[in-house]
Amino acid sequence: MKIHNYSAGPCILPKSVFKKAAESLVNYNESGLSIAEISHRSKEFMAVMENSVKLVKDLMKVPEGYEILFLQGGASMQFYMSGLNLLPEQGTAAYINTGTWSSKAIKEAKLLGNIHEVASSKNENFSYIPKKFDVPHNASFLHYTSNNTIFGTQFKEAPNTDLRLVCDMSSDIMTKEVDIKKYDLIYAGAQKNLGPAGVTLVIVKKDALGKTGRTIPSMLDYQVHIDKESMFNTPPCFSIYTTMLTMEWLKEIGGVEEIQKRNLTKSSLLYDEIDRNSLFEGTAKTEDRSVMNPTFILRDKLLNDEFLQRSIDAGISGIKGHRSVGGFRASMYNALDIKSVEALVNLMRDFEKSKG
Amino acid sequence: MKIHNYSAGPCILPKSVFKKAAESLVNYNESGLSIAEISHRSKEFMAVMENSVKLVKDLMKVPEGYEILFLQGGASMQFYMSGLNLLPEQGTAAYINTGTWSSKAIKEAKLLGNIHEVASSKNENFSYIPKKFDVPHNASFLHYTSNNTIFGTQFKEAPNTDLRLVCDMSSDIMTKEVDIKKYDLIYAGAQKNLGPAGVTLVIVKKDALGKTGRTIPSMLDYQVHIDKESMFNTPPCFSIYTTMLTMEWLKEIGGVEEIQKRNLTKSSLLYDEIDRNSLFEGTAKTEDRSVMNPTFILRDKLLNDEFLQRSIDAGISGIKGHRSVGGFRASMYNALDIKSVEALVNLMRDFEKSKG
Repeated sequence: MKIHNYSAGPCILPKSVFKKAAESLVNYNESGLSIAEISHRSKEFMAVMENSVKLVKDLMKVPEGYEILFLQGGASMQFYMSGLNLLPEQGTAAYINTGTWSSKAIKEAKLLGNIHEVASSKNENFSYIPKKFDVPHNASFLHYTSNNTIFGTQFKEAPNTDLRLVCDMSSDIMTKEVDIKKYDLIYAGAQKNLGPAGVTLVIVKKDALGKTGRTIPSMLDYQVHIDKESMFNTPPCFSIYTTMLTMEWLKEIGGVEEIQKRNLTKSSLLYDEIDRNSLFEGTAKTEDRSVMNPTFILRDKLLNDEFLQRSIDAGISGIKGHRSVGGFRASMYNALDIKSVEALVNLMRDFEKSKG
Repeated sequence: MKIHNYSAGPCILPKSVFKKAAESLVNYNESGLSIAEISHRSKEFMAVMENSVKLVKDLMKVPEGYEILFLQGGASMQFYMSGLNLLPEQGTAAYINTGTWSSKAIKEAKLLGNIHEVASSKNENFSYIPKKFDVPHNASFLHYTSNNTIFGTQFKEAPNTDLRLVCDMSSDIMTKEVDIKKYDLIYAGAQKNLGPAGVTLVIVKKDALGKTGRTIPSMLDYQVHIDKESMFNTPPCFSIYTTMLTMEWLKEIGGVEEIQKRNLTKSSLLYDEIDRNSLFEGTAKTEDRSVMNPTFILRDKLLNDEFLQRSIDAGISGIKGHRSVGGFRASMYNALDIKSVEALVNLMRDFEKSKG
């Protein structure tokens, strides 16, 4: 049976990527060696790293003045590392709180300075994106989370600010076009749209660094990783390689512009059904709905178990909602084909009919 | 042509592991999904994590009172993280300096307290293991690097001390039997004997934690990872899975006791040839020679290029020495078969004959 993988992360990647990665795991480019058993200093792996950096620059149209890093530790490490590198000692920063991930980012940043939560949608269980906020005059940067996997909301535009802008783009990077020059720092755990878990993409404006007055431990210092081209220590080679393959796939199908169209088509298809179907309703404010992670509930919660079982029977995997919201969440990352969305929509229609 | 993979790291793992990992990358346990596209919270991946912890405990005979963690960032992150978790504010610690990795560990720890280099073999290019040292009366722990990949030396026994003992075991963990109860903290990047790059094994005595008085960022706090069973954030799933497979292989062939015998047989074979062959000599003090990374040079350096080319022609990959030592380095990790060592020894014999 065809499995429709709606996992929130780690999650679906293109089948062709897994196939190629599996081949390389046994015999990389007919070398007789696995991609996972060659030195990170070998010319073969150096080429993987260089190509990966180039693909990020091409796909995201990264202008001059930015550096691309492949690090470890996920966004959770970046919650601390971003402040360590951008927030001066005794400094101030502004954060928009749109849910679990923003809250965690705020918690770690508070170890480093005066953190102002300048806007929050906590009052309505993070079901919308706050649009209005004032920032402290002395703030070093504004931090936000572009897409909220748990609550199913998404910033449609970067918040308007004169401050340096820092963004956790873990769950929607390379899913839509973004104007990089608005940002001083973008970070993203790979395991949604970029590649397997275990690697973190960082895009940092060189001009933003070196201004904190802090002594930064080597592994937490962007400048150290810039100087060593992400090879200060052994990088997570296989995760980077598979990320490279995923970016090659994205480039081949038409790049970010094309995938953005496909993602909008997919999310419209599902949201239209959520709105049409008398049994279901969306949980996020309409204008702030996430293209990546539509969240929805059954008006009659007593039907939850039955619908979930029918989804599993139909090969639809991973749509149980996060406990913070309940109901259902259909994570529709880049690699999810529209046929999988059609399968879900058909299931919802059939379910409505069966409840007549 | 059969390739004999002598890479210093990332390095050889069993072919059967790569084969099984490749299968799981396409279709994990007939689920129709890749091991790299399922949630880390799925029961399938939770089982991988639990089994991995159990295998570490079994293979290393870890007694009660210790926790097993799978983290990110490699030993380089542990250089800082170990001090952050074990060294009180304004505290003192003792370090033995046996080369590049110890030096890096000392550098990061110095950001955290008073670090005393209590012994060093720097005076002789780190070609031996210092045996005598005095520690400051108020030191919180003694740190050492059990095996030195670059200089080809290895501690045959843990240093004798009453202090808490911290060890970077990155390059010889699970290659020989170790009495865990001597240690308060062991850390190891996986990418030598345990698995692919991208995951770091930490074995920590619970009693050693919570005594620093520091506020520790979540991602750098062992206690946070203990409380969340290495799932505080998305772990490097595929690297952990492949590490699990490697540990299963090790258990199947007889465990650490058996691999220790094999490793000693392999290293004796090579060191005997280094000592017998009139063209070569070892670089490390005999009693401190590493079982993992024999380092050796040609007495006549002018022959270096020719020998290196002949090794490549014979399918022997990765024996060029590190620039700090020169000559050659034959990294012989757990998965390297004795046939590969025989191939190298035969090449050295043939080379001697050809130079008559």
